[in-house]
Amino acid sequence: MAAEEEILVPQEAAAFGDAARHAVYEVIRTRRDIRHFAPDGAVAADVLERILDAAHHAPSVGFSQPWGFVLVRDLEQRTRIRESFLRCRAREAERFPPARRAQYLALQLEGIVDAALNVCVTVDLRPADEAVLGATAQPDAVRFSACCAVQNLWLAARAEGIGVGWVSIVEPAVLRTELALPAGVEPIAYLCMGHPIAFRSQPMLEEVGWRPRRALADVVHEGRWQQTTDLVEQPTSRR
Amino acid sequence: MAAEEEILVPQEAAAFGDAARHAVYEVIRTRRDIRHFAPDGAVAADVLERILDAAHHAPSVGFSQPWGFVLVRDLEQRTRIRESFLRCRAREAERFPPARRAQYLALQLEGIVDAALNVCVTVDLRPADEAVLGATAQPDAVRFSACCAVQNLWLAARAEGIGVGWVSIVEPAVLRTELALPAGVEPIAYLCMGHPIAFRSQPMLEEVGWRPRRALADVVHEGRWQQTTDLVEQPTSRR
Repeated sequence: MAAEEEILVPQEAAAFGDAARHAVYEVIRTRRDIRHFAPDGAVAADVLERILDAAHHAPSVGFSQPWGFVLVRDLEQRTRIRESFLRCRAREAERFPPARRAQYLALQLEGIVDAALNVCVTVDLRPADEAVLGATAQPDAVRFSACCAVQNLWLAARAEGIGVGWVSIVEPAVLRTELALPAGVEPIAYLCMGHPIAFRSQPMLEEVGWRPRRALADVVHEGRWQQTTDLVEQPTSRR
Repeated sequence: MAAEEEILVPQEAAAFGDAARHAVYEVIRTRRDIRHFAPDGAVAADVLERILDAAHHAPSVGFSQPWGFVLVRDLEQRTRIRESFLRCRAREAERFPPARRAQYLALQLEGIVDAALNVCVTVDLRPADEAVLGATAQPDAVRFSACCAVQNLWLAARAEGIGVGWVSIVEPAVLRTELALPAGVEPIAYLCMGHPIAFRSQPMLEEVGWRPRRALADVVHEGRWQQTTDLVEQPTSRR
């Protein structure tokens, strides 16, 4: 075991160069939720492995790495999962008034069967021999770690030219059964993955006018919630 | 409102070039949970704005953008939040047997006061006039959107040479009070942000031998959970 003070020996503290930094912002800005897939066949195994390895390098509370990635290729399995989507969509549609409902039902919201494959990201919440460091005060941190893995996966896929869409309109109980999840292993995200028709310049729900993008200033608060800021540089109080 | 079929017009479907793709994997691999901050003062306002804007470009269910970013600079406020950390740490330490507990207590687990600033990422779960598209079957998707924003923030910060550490060892109730969160706005992640001493080559908990990294093959399952795969390319069933 390395001594704690060795941690303080610098290894690498540099910012990225301009081109690399630009690439990071570019992947963040151009990532899209993809529901239209091109019939280009499989995601190459080496590409898929790189993408999953990126997901596996997400942060996790107590280095718990609680995620799992279930690759779903079987068409019948996916067809049954899509039936769950259709049931959930019908139920959700009822929440909207008629005009809005028609717009909702016209939207392509998933590519479960069209995509080259589906990936269910799971989280393992089963009690282990030892507590997870950092999960006592906020047990949800374990689930949240799996979400960070989803975002890593999504960004890596974008860089590879692979589209990913997150289908939350599906019954967790169906996923548990179809994917044979043991009790305590929960689905976090059901993802469609494959070659996209396009990465649009805006999110689809923004493009079709479902909802506008919020201004950055509206989501940034100074000191306490709800006091927005113009992000002027302020003196920092330090020890 | 754009017609649904216009969505199918290609805009950009390309993978990144090799250098840009490499940068994306590099930022994912070299991101670290930082708890040791250099006394270099504030994060420049333009850098902070870019990082927060990256967070704001995370995916969100129904394009809800439910996140908030509360910037905490005040030293007294942070000192009170750190007291909550100390209480939680004392409580969590009791979960470990004596030898392990000593190791736990020797770890630097936060930089709440040392960091240039703290950022609390919140999620707005208050009922709105209209349902959030996609959140009916899986209401947690709203929280999970805020987690994706955390990961975007973390990666953008790494590219900028700024360190971020996620402190989950803190009482949500204290954050609600200190940050004046209205009922229904919940803290998702309490982050320390500033100039790091170093980005270590491994996660700290791996480096000090707290827990090993799992093999990728152990977290990837083919078709159903718990059947690991060697990621050989398989025929894809398609419509």
